Amino acid sequence: MAAAAKAENLSLVVHGPGDLRLENYPVPEPGPNEVLLKMHSVGICGSDVHYWQHGRIGDFIVKKPMVLGHEAAGTVIKVGSSVKHLKPGDRVAIEPGSPRENDYFCKIGRYNLTPSIFFCATPPDDGNLSRFYKHNADFCYKLPDNVTFEEGALIEPLSVGIYACRRGGVSLGNKILVCGAGPIGLVNLIVAKAMGAAQVLVTDMNASRLSKAKEVGADFILQINKESPKEIASKVEKLLGSKPEVTIECTGAESSIQTGIYATISGGTLVLVGMGAEMVSVPLVHAAAREVDIKGVFRYCNTWPMAISMLASKTINVKPLVTHRFPLEKAMEAFETSKQGVGLKVMIKCDPNDQDP
Amino acid sequence: MAAAAKAENLSLVVHGPGDLRLENYPVPEPGPNEVLLKMHSVGICGSDVHYWQHGRIGDFIVKKPMVLGHEAAGTVIKVGSSVKHLKPGDRVAIEPGSPRENDYFCKIGRYNLTPSIFFCATPPDDGNLSRFYKHNADFCYKLPDNVTFEEGALIEPLSVGIYACRRGGVSLGNKILVCGAGPIGLVNLIVAKAMGAAQVLVTDMNASRLSKAKEVGADFILQINKESPKEIASKVEKLLGSKPEVTIECTGAESSIQTGIYATISGGTLVLVGMGAEMVSVPLVHAAAREVDIKGVFRYCNTWPMAISMLASKTINVKPLVTHRFPLEKAMEAFETSKQGVGLKVMIKCDPNDQDP
Amino acid sequence: MAAAAKAENLSLVVHGPGDLRLENYPVPEPGPNEVLLKMHSVGICGSDVHYWQHGRIGDFIVKKPMVLGHEAAGTVIKVGSSVKHLKPGDRVAIEPGSPRENDYFCKIGRYNLTPSIFFCATPPDDGNLSRFYKHNADFCYKLPDNVTFEEGALIEPLSVGIYACRRGGVSLGNKILVCGAGPIGLVNLIVAKAMGAAQVLVTDMNASRLSKAKEVGADFILQINKESPKEIASKVEKLLGSKPEVTIECTGAESSIQTGIYATISGGTLVLVGMGAEMVSVPLVHAAAREVDIKGVFRYCNTWPMAISMLASKTINVKPLVTHRFPLEKAMEAFETSKQGVGLKVMIKCDPNDQDP
Amino acid sequence: MAAAAKAENLSLVVHGPGDLRLENYPVPEPGPNEVLLKMHSVGICGSDVHYWQHGRIGDFIVKKPMVLGHEAAGTVIKVGSSVKHLKPGDRVAIEPGSPRENDYFCKIGRYNLTPSIFFCATPPDDGNLSRFYKHNADFCYKLPDNVTFEEGALIEPLSVGIYACRRGGVSLGNKILVCGAGPIGLVNLIVAKAMGAAQVLVTDMNASRLSKAKEVGADFILQINKESPKEIASKVEKLLGSKPEVTIECTGAESSIQTGIYATISGGTLVLVGMGAEMVSVPLVHAAAREVDIKGVFRYCNTWPMAISMLASKTINVKPLVTHRFPLEKAMEAFETSKQGVGLKVMIKCDPNDQDP
Ligand SMILES: NC(=O)c1ccc[n+]([C@@H]2O[C@H](COP(=O)([O-])OP(=O)(O)OC[C@H]3O[C@@H](n4cnc5c(N)ncnc54)[C@H](O)[C@@H]3O)[C@@H](O)[C@H]2O)c1
Ligand SMILES: NC(=O)c1ccc[n+]([C@@H]2O[C@H](COP(=O)([O-])OP(=O)(O)OC[C@H]3O[C@@H](n4cnc5c(N)ncnc54)[C@H](O)[C@@H]3O)[C@@H](O)[C@H]2O)c1
Ligand SMILES: NC(=O)c1ccc[n+]([C@@H]2O[C@H](COP(=O)([O-])OP(=O)(O)OC[C@H]3O[C@@H](n4cnc5c(N)ncnc54)[C@H](O)[C@@H]3O)[C@@H](O)[C@H]2O)c1
Ligand SMILES: NC(=O)c1ccc[n+]([C@@H]2O[C@H](COP(=O)([O-])OP(=O)(O)OC[C@H]3O[C@@H](n4cnc5c(N)ncnc54)[C@H](O)[C@@H]3O)[C@@H](O)[C@H]2O)c1
Ligand SMILES: [Zn+2]
Ligand SMILES: [Zn+2]
Ligand SMILES: [Zn+2]
Ligand SMILES: [Zn+2]
Repeated sequence: MAAAAKAENLSLVVHGPGDLRLENYPVPEPGPNEVLLKMHSVGICGSDVHYWQHGRIGDFIVKKPMVLGHEAAGTVIKVGSSVKHLKPGDRVAIEPGSPRENDYFCKIGRYNLTPSIFFCATPPDDGNLSRFYKHNADFCYKLPDNVTFEEGALIEPLSVGIYACRRGGVSLGNKILVCGAGPIGLVNLIVAKAMGAAQVLVTDMNASRLSKAKEVGADFILQINKESPKEIASKVEKLLGSKPEVTIECTGAESSIQTGIYATISGGTLVLVGMGAEMVSVPLVHAAAREVDIKGVFRYCNTWPMAISMLASKTINVKPLVTHRFPLEKAMEAFETSKQGVGLKVMIKCDPNDQDP
Repeated sequence: MAAAAKAENLSLVVHGPGDLRLENYPVPEPGPNEVLLKMHSVGICGSDVHYWQHGRIGDFIVKKPMVLGHEAAGTVIKVGSSVKHLKPGDRVAIEPGSPRENDYFCKIGRYNLTPSIFFCATPPDDGNLSRFYKHNADFCYKLPDNVTFEEGALIEPLSVGIYACRRGGVSLGNKILVCGAGPIGLVNLIVAKAMGAAQVLVTDMNASRLSKAKEVGADFILQINKESPKEIASKVEKLLGSKPEVTIECTGAESSIQTGIYATISGGTLVLVGMGAEMVSVPLVHAAAREVDIKGVFRYCNTWPMAISMLASKTINVKPLVTHRFPLEKAMEAFETSKQGVGLKVMIKCDPNDQDP
Repeated sequence: MAAAAKAENLSLVVHGPGDLRLENYPVPEPGPNEVLLKMHSVGICGSDVHYWQHGRIGDFIVKKPMVLGHEAAGTVIKVGSSVKHLKPGDRVAIEPGSPRENDYFCKIGRYNLTPSIFFCATPPDDGNLSRFYKHNADFCYKLPDNVTFEEGALIEPLSVGIYACRRGGVSLGNKILVCGAGPIGLVNLIVAKAMGAAQVLVTDMNASRLSKAKEVGADFILQINKESPKEIASKVEKLLGSKPEVTIECTGAESSIQTGIYATISGGTLVLVGMGAEMVSVPLVHAAAREVDIKGVFRYCNTWPMAISMLASKTINVKPLVTHRFPLEKAMEAFETSKQGVGLKVMIKCDPNDQDP
Repeated sequence: MAAAAKAENLSLVVHGPGDLRLENYPVPEPGPNEVLLKMHSVGICGSDVHYWQHGRIGDFIVKKPMVLGHEAAGTVIKVGSSVKHLKPGDRVAIEPGSPRENDYFCKIGRYNLTPSIFFCATPPDDGNLSRFYKHNADFCYKLPDNVTFEEGALIEPLSVGIYACRRGGVSLGNKILVCGAGPIGLVNLIVAKAMGAAQVLVTDMNASRLSKAKEVGADFILQINKESPKEIASKVEKLLGSKPEVTIECTGAESSIQTGIYATISGGTLVLVGMGAEMVSVPLVHAAAREVDIKGVFRYCNTWPMAISMLASKTINVKPLVTHRFPLEKAMEAFETSKQGVGLKVMIKCDPNDQDP
């Protein structure tokens, strides 16, 4: 039985830098407050690729084999004894971070900051790029019929955008600068527009990424070449007619952070989403004297229910983000595609019987 | 010359209850920080009709003849000596409230609360339903070419919606209840959607108003008959799938305020826009024990620049609100139409040479 | 052994209106995430007296025998298998409300609003007026050596003050009106002063309560007789020099809520702590047109750790609130004293071997 | 008469780097919304000394002679024609920044950010280190009898503390780290305690400044030697028992900003008050990933009225900050003393007939 179970649960496992394997894992048994899920769609994130390439991100090091994947949706097939809000057959989106203890951070509603949190595909916690996966039932959210599994999986990167825009205080009529047109820059663009931003300007060095930005709603795009941060800030001001109230930095590049400080209006906010070098050189006194607040973003919290409301009501459209699809068996190919940076979001289809979006 | 000037400035003046006259007023001379405007479009507001019908609103009593009108846009034709940001020829929207002193409320950014504020068509201050009108230059905002005068005039009621939604903390993915489908209910609906509300439900007793609500974007409409507030609250919850995070009360009716308290989710906000009876009977303990905050709205502040950004970028569309147009000479007819409540927003066109939107 | 255990745990139990009994209960066994406590000091709250007198508060009805008490501190004597932050011997203060599920309200940090919360001495949940009591370990907070058990127990009513002042946005230099000089009014007074309020004015009809208010720090007291709410509001303004930024209503009386609306400065906040009649008649339009926000308070959340910091650093002093002490065996006498309203806070000492504060 | 007037108004004027002169200026004539003041007490600020020593601070350059002084209080001796709230004889504290236009920043209540603001002793605007001085009446605040002129003058540095603590969200029970024990560090310490901070830790390299910090209320002091920022952060955590919720950086030193990032609790706030080098090297990703917000402070806004309330009610005590006093005639000596950094706040007494505090 154990052997049979093992045979059933194909999983994508990173063993160390450059060492990625498709392996059979046992089908897990859900605890009292957990659900067992048949996985359907899992997006590949930059961090998955990074763990595969480098075996680590900062202090998080792959010391033992770890299943990848954290942008995911699937179907409940078994529920733990104390689970009340879900039942077998429910289609759900998975919030990958689930706190292990009810500490100060959880109690104040910022559970993403609790140091002992379980988080899919962050060492040493396994992710959900597999046929079957069990998760804390409180962090699985029922999808309505008119929201697809892929939309459910995209709630994860979308949440970074929701949370970043919320932290930035994006509001009606704002002018917004988004630095970087990768998947994270684009979800921020989409969310900012949905929150009523009047104009969003997106920067990147890559022309094809910028044209995708244009496609999903950017009012202005600005291709970066060798301009200094001050020059870029001045171009941004000219294009928007005034300095943006909020800048959302989604590259991690030092020069882009500097741009954010120069570009943002006095009293505005620079949100740091991009994660870059440990130490950066920045004109902090320029930010301070103009009261440009600098706020970081660590993942997200309290975004899934509202994201589902938005997707169900068609307030936003994230479908254009998916550019490639591969069945789980071809996960290696999928990762190669993602690594090459062609396209935007690569989806892995984990259910051999249903490869629909 | 003075006589000539007088002959030029046709104005709509209320003298007391039921006493409305078209009269010639002198063309005013702008002070150092003022601009003289050639008026173009002025919307009729419920309060204008009320001053005409009753000669008062609460403690504001028409004791001497007062020019009506406060939803307005026009063209600068003369600027005071110290005005820098405007010049003759500029098309502007007028913010009707302009503080007379820089007191505590102005300094903290809530200038709408300063007791000595000048406010168009609130006794004893004259409004701008006339050919020419002078105003504090700091409260005239330049319109871009792609925003019409009527859109400029509509910024006034729109501002009530922007400010109410802001006070209510409407945010992305929210479910919203708007009570009342008059012009004020509708601008709240439009703004809530622009801020990313997932679903907005609008109530009214009047079916034709509800169908207008549907037309401008309501996700749900609910026609009120004789249901109790608790019954309405329960219908709202059923339609939306859960209680709304924010309720925006735009009728002033006691029963609708009660509905707002029962309907709003614990921890949510009930915004009181509608102005009704002095004393109302309400289940306050029900609001308190579920921490439904109750926040009033007195006009607005800090809305014009962002409203212009939104209109310029086509983030919102207020044009469908205008249902009737009359030249200034037919202002009496326009007021009769507005009083009868057919249609929604009646526009008075003050420039005999340009009656375009 | 079970019989022996039963004999050990003397508890104060309400069986219905007017029916209060000292009974022996079994000593409970802590679950994996619970701790067993030897109770030390438990304060009597108005709600305890109310359940004894009336067998209900609103919709909460005593349908089966219920142990009273929720303002409590004790010593850990046994810890559940998964408890890490506490060990036998730790002295702790108990937060009486502990959520049963991690729902929307818990996740956003407002766990006091979760409908299924366990709450000591709110039917059907047992309180801790007993020798031994088990509680969710996450809601037991270690007391430093320099904080007494009674201070620990007083954190419960103090929390109402902390939370109310926080919801009201009490801040440095504010003028504050506190309506009612019962225990809840007094903790609000103490907290408001600790937050830097420049002047706090306390009202009551009862002169001796007002003199206690003076004793614990009120800058002004105002004895209410037959004045109308508007008259009281005007006296408050005269005494303070201007209208208060925040009013904290701690009586539940309709007339006092009305006073709060008239008395608070435009743009200020009226916090409703007092729980009174289901329906009240109030001048809501007066609050709305001056943007006096009305915010309720349902218990508290996120107050224990900071309350302990404050007590440990002597930032505040709650000791004067305790006016009477009785051993658990004399609980009936203690309740009689509390009911008569002489004094302020009556403490019940549950540890026969340690009756110190 | 002009000559006579000139002779009367002794003023301290900086002409360029190192060139400070006591000169006779004409007594100014107040405009319609201004008041003429007989100056009483003016504190010397680090910036005054800096302009004297270097003739500039950043982009603000002394290009023509400028009167120094901006921490000031005096007596109204003449009021402009439209001034209503002040009359000759009123004792007032002066807010040195007074906006020249009612722009976007003023309207939203952040008037300190308006670029064209008049600010005493910031080139090219004259300060008030003189016998007579005129100022915008809206920015002169009447002092109650029980607040001295020197307390009135100290409201200026105190305001930096109020504003910084407000921006940092210092609240009841917080642990606070203040970096630097100069006058600005000390006012932050005093204000944080007044806001209910449980524990404030102050750092400096200078032992005598630290003992002054202890004297005015620091719970902990930490003398910095050659420790790395991470080492200091770890000492701070040990002393306070946990990481501080708010760090207020009042040195401008790069290493101290780094310390602030490492030391502050996840989800907390680092307030930058100190103004240092244009570019600094900082571990921004460490702040971002722990969501330590970084907020600058540019002077202050909306602090005078509440500061006066606090001083009048004795909620705070700033008197110990004054360590030296000199008559205006000995201003050069006063500046020498201030430059040497002995003592803390040097007061210049401008009224030859009243040299009292
Ligand atoms: N804070 C969080 O919780 C969180 C979550 C997810 C991702 N991230 C971070 O967000 C960042 C973006 O993620 P992604 O998946 O979109 O990455 P990505 O690499 O696909 O996209 C980054 C984009 O930025 C562009 N870019 C690089 N330097 C630039 C510059 N100086 N100016 C303008 N554009 C520039 C690149 O061309 C690229 O298109 C990464 O740093 C990632 O680590 C953070
Ligand atoms: N707070 C402010 O600053 C401000 C500004 C403008 C208008 N107002 C107030 O807003 C309110 C709405 O203004 P308007 O111009 O849209 O008025 P309106 O009279 O045109 O619209 C009110 C609508 O509410 C409906 N209604 C009445 N009772 C109802 C009930 N119990 N349930 C549901 N619907 C009900 C009516 O049928 C009507 O369609 C008025 O009270 C007005 O005084 C306030
Ligand atoms: N919201 C919550 O979570 C919460 C928690 C605890 C208590 N409460 C409520 O707070 C209120 C106060 O609690 P308490 O224990 O201090 O009660 P209490 O009865 O001891 O004190 C109330 C005081 O108000 C005075 N009072 C009554 N009417 C007044 C009036 N019109 N003006 C001025 N003073 C008046 C009384 O003389 C009395 O001294 C109660 O209504 C209680 O139910 C609410
Ligand atoms: N943001 C604003 O609006 C505003 C207003 C006033 C002053 N400031 C700035 O605030 C800062 C403090 O002003 P002040 O008048 O108190 O200056 P100050 O020079 O008298 O005091 C600074 C103190 O910091 C100490 N210090 C220096 N490096 C340190 C380090 N690495 N760690 C710990 N302590 C260190 C010094 O020994 C000194 O005691 C200055 O940078 C000033 O420019 C800013
Ligand atoms: Zn991801
Ligand atoms: Zn109107
Ligand atoms: Zn209680
Ligand atoms: Zn200064």
